[in-house]
Amino acid sequence: MPNWLLPENIADVLPSEARKIEELRRRLLDNFRLYGYEMVMPPLLEYLESLLTGAGQDTDLRTFKLVDQLSGRTLGVRADMTTQVARIDAHLLNRASVTRLCYAGSVLHTRPTGLHATREPIQIGAEIYGHAGLEADAEIQELALNSLALAGMRTIRLDLCHVGVLRAIIANDAAAKRDEAQLFALLQAKDVPGLQEITATYQEGTRAALLALPNLYGDISVIARARITLPALPGIAQALDELQALVELAAGHEGAAVTIDLADLRGYHYHSGVMFSAYVPGLPNAVVRGGRYDHVGEAFGRARPATGFSLDLRELARLMPGAERKRAILAPWGRDAGLREKIAQLRQAGEIVIQSLPGHEHDQDEFDCDRALDFSNGNWIIKNLG
Amino acid sequence: MPNWLLPENIADVLPSEARKIEELRRRLLDNFRLYGYEMVMPPLLEYLESLLTGAGQDTDLRTFKLVDQLSGRTLGVRADMTTQVARIDAHLLNRASVTRLCYAGSVLHTRPTGLHATREPIQIGAEIYGHAGLEADAEIQELALNSLALAGMRTIRLDLCHVGVLRAIIANDAAAKRDEAQLFALLQAKDVPGLQEITATYQEGTRAALLALPNLYGDISVIARARITLPALPGIAQALDELQALVELAAGHEGAAVTIDLADLRGYHYHSGVMFSAYVPGLPNAVVRGGRYDHVGEAFGRARPATGFSLDLRELARLMPGAERKRAILAPWGRDAGLREKIAQLRQAGEIVIQSLPGHEHDQDEFDCDRALDFSNGNWIIKNLG
Repeated sequence: MPNWLLPENIADVLPSEARKIEELRRRLLDNFRLYGYEMVMPPLLEYLESLLTGAGQDTDLRTFKLVDQLSGRTLGVRADMTTQVARIDAHLLNRASVTRLCYAGSVLHTRPTGLHATREPIQIGAEIYGHAGLEADAEIQELALNSLALAGMRTIRLDLCHVGVLRAIIANDAAAKRDEAQLFALLQAKDVPGLQEITATYQEGTRAALLALPNLYGDISVIARARITLPALPGIAQALDELQALVELAAGHEGAAVTIDLADLRGYHYHSGVMFSAYVPGLPNAVVRGGRYDHVGEAFGRARPATGFSLDLRELARLMPGAERKRAILAPWGRDAGLREKIAQLRQAGEIVIQSLPGHEHDQDEFDCDRALDFSNGNWIIKNLG
Repeated sequence: MPNWLLPENIADVLPSEARKIEELRRRLLDNFRLYGYEMVMPPLLEYLESLLTGAGQDTDLRTFKLVDQLSGRTLGVRADMTTQVARIDAHLLNRASVTRLCYAGSVLHTRPTGLHATREPIQIGAEIYGHAGLEADAEIQELALNSLALAGMRTIRLDLCHVGVLRAIIANDAAAKRDEAQLFALLQAKDVPGLQEITATYQEGTRAALLALPNLYGDISVIARARITLPALPGIAQALDELQALVELAAGHEGAAVTIDLADLRGYHYHSGVMFSAYVPGLPNAVVRGGRYDHVGEAFGRARPATGFSLDLRELARLMPGAERKRAILAPWGRDAGLREKIAQLRQAGEIVIQSLPGHEHDQDEFDCDRALDFSNGNWIIKNLG
């Protein structure tokens, strides 16, 4: 095997794509900052138990493990940055107040989430800690949606869900509670035959409610439908009230259609309240995932309400149109003071100036050198290249 | 052990430091672009043999190894990005012309290079491929120096060296050639007793030249001194001529003092010609390392002349003054259209606007909210906060 092949689902990012990713990264981080989010940079590597605190089993399976030569302990390479940022909020910043944090960085996965998925997403996200109200969820959703708008996405679907519905349904049925993980997987796959089989021994109300969930998706009328179809449990009523309130708050987001899917429970173990996903044309899976995860801080010894979202910059950048070739000025090689000064001035003014190296005067591929510096009548002047 | 402690020599970057790193990162990448460098993003993870191709044994020891669950093969987490970028030039871009590339990303080291060194530097660098002349080295050195200037460094020392000197000295002495790795280490440590011991059995000329090297450092007069002290071998003469030419080309770099150190051979195995380091006050070790490494491409089956430099953004950012608290505008929570529009306008104009979440009206730590949005006579106006 040639030594320049890369592992499966791992790729280099070449200049035009790298440029898109870098520009999108800056645009999103700058927007987070305009909302008052402070950037943090958690490490790539942590002790495994710290990295997996508050995370589900799927994160464990996705995490590369290493041995630390300094301590002999097991380290993990981060597969997700959310719990890292929760740790920073809980222990490093240790504020009593509302804290808004954002981050961007590579994560690694042992296995791709799909056939063509990268094992090295560039995760970017924003989180609010210290506020349990729906206002924080609404702000996070707004930020998620305008992140997509900043990437040029015009048609966005915001899909809302709530873990409280499933939790309330199974809370009073020991058999269902025991099967929680399987139920979650079956609902996620909308596997109705599987659900019929597993619920056969449950209480009749539990069974009916679970079998109803896969059909409770669609526009916001689903909330009203769920109030009729699902049992009148306080947990369900509260979850539906919260969804209703968020739908109303989301009405301000221009251009985003809001839908409900009560069985879309990805990240269920991790989340504690409302969850959301955003979809754009061209991608079958959600491009953004987010929601409330109030219990993650507890694992670090400091319970803080938390809500946030993240997305993969690589994936989002791929949906954007290609970057144009950038106009540039070709300059000859030379050390004379006049030339050097002219080049410095042009760069100061934001022009890309490429000095030819002797023997390679006309070898530019990626930049469009439409002008050249030319020495004429004792001055360096810019000449258009035909 | 509490589960929020981090491994040794691994740290979170908190907001004020993260802001400095992010701003410096952008400033350097933007400057590379003004010189015509295209950005690439190599992966964090590669097959080990690919990652270590062309790299020295120290890189091997510094590289974390993992098993790929998809292929069963050994992967490495990059400890250095230079050979990755050389691989991209050789196989992905595959151009015949001069190619200027730049990159920025985290690397991981199994062990810190010093007591307080991080095991997760953020490496940023620039490389020129396809040009063997000193003009390319001069451009790279200029870029390295103005990267430091962009970080606010006012006093910079550029230290030049050349691997050709040691290579020529030992080329005709089998005993010395056999001890190359040890000689390199002893010279790097300027360990004269060790050199006296190991060179005892060498030819007299080799021994004298090797013992002279640790004293051949200082201002640019060292080049003239070396011409007298060292044997008149063609390889040595050529190396000294190249250093002389680079000293003259470097005369254009304002504010940088140029020095020579013929025993400063860090990265010797990897490099093929001139090497350089840059030093700034406050850091005992070089903040920038760079030089020519024409043979790395060969290992990927395509020999291309190459020269470049890199530095650790974390380290350089630490030398910079702290970022100031950023001024911001406090806005009340609310969904009314007038308020939302006013906030959007202010953010559009670059103002940071933080919406208070109900119950947490006055809880900002990092931003200096010196103004607030206030509803007065039917309009949202900005009010100064005392």
